[in-house]
Amino acid sequence: MYVSLSRLRVPPDRADELVAAFRRRARLVDEFEGFVDLQVWQSDRDPGELVMVSRWTDREFFKHYMKSREHEVSHDRIDADLDAAIKLERLEHMHVVAE
Amino acid sequence: MYVSLSRLRVPPDRADELVAAFRRRARLVDEFEGFVDLQVWQSDRDPGELVMVSRWTDREFFKHYMKSREHEVSHDRIDADLDAAIKLERLEHMHVVAE
Repeated sequence: MYVSLSRLRVPPDRADELVAAFRRRARLVDEFEGFVDLQVWQSDRDPGELVMVSRWTDREFFKHYMKSREHEVSHDRIDADLDAAIKLERLEHMHVVAE
Repeated sequence: MYVSLSRLRVPPDRADELVAAFRRRARLVDEFEGFVDLQVWQSDRDPGELVMVSRWTDREFFKHYMKSREHEVSHDRIDADLDAAIKLERLEHMHVVAE
């Protein structure tokens, strides 16, 4: 199983706004082939640090989604001002090797 | 839901050994109250970078497990030489805020 990890940073006073935006996400990705699940994690110590984790049966399906119109639509729903305040600190590509 | 993230580093030539150790883990944690699941992720770009992710209904249950005899037993099963080669780079405490 492939895991995509996006580490995001926002000013702490905008963290609630970003969490709210994730909670009302369009869920277009959920119907994509190979999609397993998506969670957003927030650091206990630093509320401005969030990690978006999506799991896929195979990395190719993730790449396919990233190039899709649905991904563009989902991203475009984010308020422009909030979007400008989000910094993508790190993007990681991993695979599940044990459980 | 609480998420514990342990970022581990091993020399790349010992990564397979660490993965094998995780695959034959004692699974004592699985029976603990509040335990949801555990996965080990390996970086695609850097095989020596691994993340152990465990999810719990509540952080208190995780803390309880960390102080338990079962955790000690599980840890003690790791080969001493391999254990000495593992560096815990970062420990993160997070909560699921959206999915």
